[in-house]
Amino acid sequence: MAGTRLDITRIEAARRAIDPTFLDTPLYRCEALEPVLGCAVSVKLETANPVRSFKGRGTELVASQLAGGAAVCASAGNLGQALAWSGRGRGLDVTVVASRFAPAAKLDRIRALGATLELVDGDFDMARERTVAIARDRGIRLVEDSLDIETCEGAATIGLELVDAAQPFDTVLIALGGGALATGVGHVLKTRAPGVEVVCVQPLGAPAMTRSWRERRVVTTDSTDTIADGVAGRLPIQEVLDDLLLVADDAVLVREESIIAGMRLLLEHAGLVVEPSAALGIAAILEDRDRFAGRHVVTIVCGSNVDVDAYHRWVGTATRR
Amino acid sequence: MAGTRLDITRIEAARRAIDPTFLDTPLYRCEALEPVLGCAVSVKLETANPVRSFKGRGTELVASQLAGGAAVCASAGNLGQALAWSGRGRGLDVTVVASRFAPAAKLDRIRALGATLELVDGDFDMARERTVAIARDRGIRLVEDSLDIETCEGAATIGLELVDAAQPFDTVLIALGGGALATGVGHVLKTRAPGVEVVCVQPLGAPAMTRSWRERRVVTTDSTDTIADGVAGRLPIQEVLDDLLLVADDAVLVREESIIAGMRLLLEHAGLVVEPSAALGIAAILEDRDRFAGRHVVTIVCGSNVDVDAYHRWVGTATRR
Repeated sequence: MAGTRLDITRIEAARRAIDPTFLDTPLYRCEALEPVLGCAVSVKLETANPVRSFKGRGTELVASQLAGGAAVCASAGNLGQALAWSGRGRGLDVTVVASRFAPAAKLDRIRALGATLELVDGDFDMARERTVAIARDRGIRLVEDSLDIETCEGAATIGLELVDAAQPFDTVLIALGGGALATGVGHVLKTRAPGVEVVCVQPLGAPAMTRSWRERRVVTTDSTDTIADGVAGRLPIQEVLDDLLLVADDAVLVREESIIAGMRLLLEHAGLVVEPSAALGIAAILEDRDRFAGRHVVTIVCGSNVDVDAYHRWVGTATRR
Repeated sequence: MAGTRLDITRIEAARRAIDPTFLDTPLYRCEALEPVLGCAVSVKLETANPVRSFKGRGTELVASQLAGGAAVCASAGNLGQALAWSGRGRGLDVTVVASRFAPAAKLDRIRALGATLELVDGDFDMARERTVAIARDRGIRLVEDSLDIETCEGAATIGLELVDAAQPFDTVLIALGGGALATGVGHVLKTRAPGVEVVCVQPLGAPAMTRSWRERRVVTTDSTDTIADGVAGRLPIQEVLDDLLLVADDAVLVREESIIAGMRLLLEHAGLVVEPSAALGIAAILEDRDRFAGRHVVTIVCGSNVDVDAYHRWVGTATRR
């Protein structure tokens, strides 16, 4: 795959720097979902690890290069947990900047893992701004999700596992936020399995990267409005968009009620608790069953860090059916 | 480990007959659980596969020996699903006999996987009786969970993965029903990692095998009373008890409220939906924190097949806290 910032040799090397607890995650058919969705569905499960999201793949790579140093990142909650985990094991001094509106479960875990947590009175992109100042003032490494190539390469190792799948598949559905997951996995698939369709999924309430992909230029928004906190960015990064334009076959937007319905289906028919961002793929199928009918679709279940009370509100008996 | 019916060479060979979708399951620390439980806790997650329990390991072995034939098994729900799955892939004609009181979710999946399902108006042990008649009348293979060595050898492959764990651990907590999981995993640990304590956990409401282990002879009960349907047997098997006496360091009984509390903790702090039997290990820690304090405990999360309505009743907001 010429043209993107990623390189398959570096991605293969990345696997060797990543703690095996994050690698070779389950990939399996969920047939109980299939009568509801009208297509064959497999799940790539990235939640059964110490930080309950795929972000450890990238932070392991970052931390392996920084042993004993210091780093700061902005985080919607999952990157911060993962960097704290990876940094703790390597004597790295980690600072995480997050929105004070991020899920308490995510913020609590960042603190519990020993990172310094600074909260901003704004959203993820305000946290990003703040990290730039911290990195400059303290002279420490700024880890920028999706811009830093290690975050993309880490995510791309999921792609290596997908192309080794025993059962062939037609489409992969990838949650789209900053773009590390989509460009990483997309690069590997377009290199090793170019027949697989790469479809990115973003909430209608946080559509900046999807609009940018469609218009082939960075389009920003003033605000976001979605429960999918993990992908709620307003300010796409040019370099990531450039890569995404080379590897994504499509980018779609889904409604909040479809995300909730997706979370509920994953609970009821697959026994999986997922955070809203991890239900985007199922939401995309629900909104366009005809498109996926008869195909074999892989959806990456990218995280399960939810506030339990919010989760119960979304999927609980009170609102069910 | 001399004396049991199991053999480590056969268990290693079993791995090669089992579809990889059931092997090399996640094993990881759940630190968020640890402040509540007072010990280090790792989860061996056996739910992220097409049948949502560990039973596929054993049925793959059975089915690989029976391609094109016919088999019947009694099941609390998980073995039947697994045998149906393994049989379907190998042209095996599968009949499952289950209690009509088994969770609907389990019965529905057995049917959906193409097995013939026969319901008895009684419990699991009545279903076992019925399979003996079916096997005799039709001249087909009777698969008896825990008695058939393949069901123990399949479960024992979990033990091989545990002894390869990157982090050493002190104790493994194993749900005890018929005994295949406990004798299989126990045999491998006592052979390869004899310093690890093997603790079996059963509900107070279904204590037959635990009482048998304590009295060193088969003790039966007239009935069972537990939500942990997967381990609710009344009639322990002599050969399995003989093995269990050689590999188990302890067998403990836990209360129903501890099982529910365990399910709730796994949901709230690990994001895992589990069936009651899979929460027995956490329940055992809750009932005896002092015993496990400061140790590193592995609990095998053996299944996640629950009726969603029942699950919501057990762990939902209405009853929470």
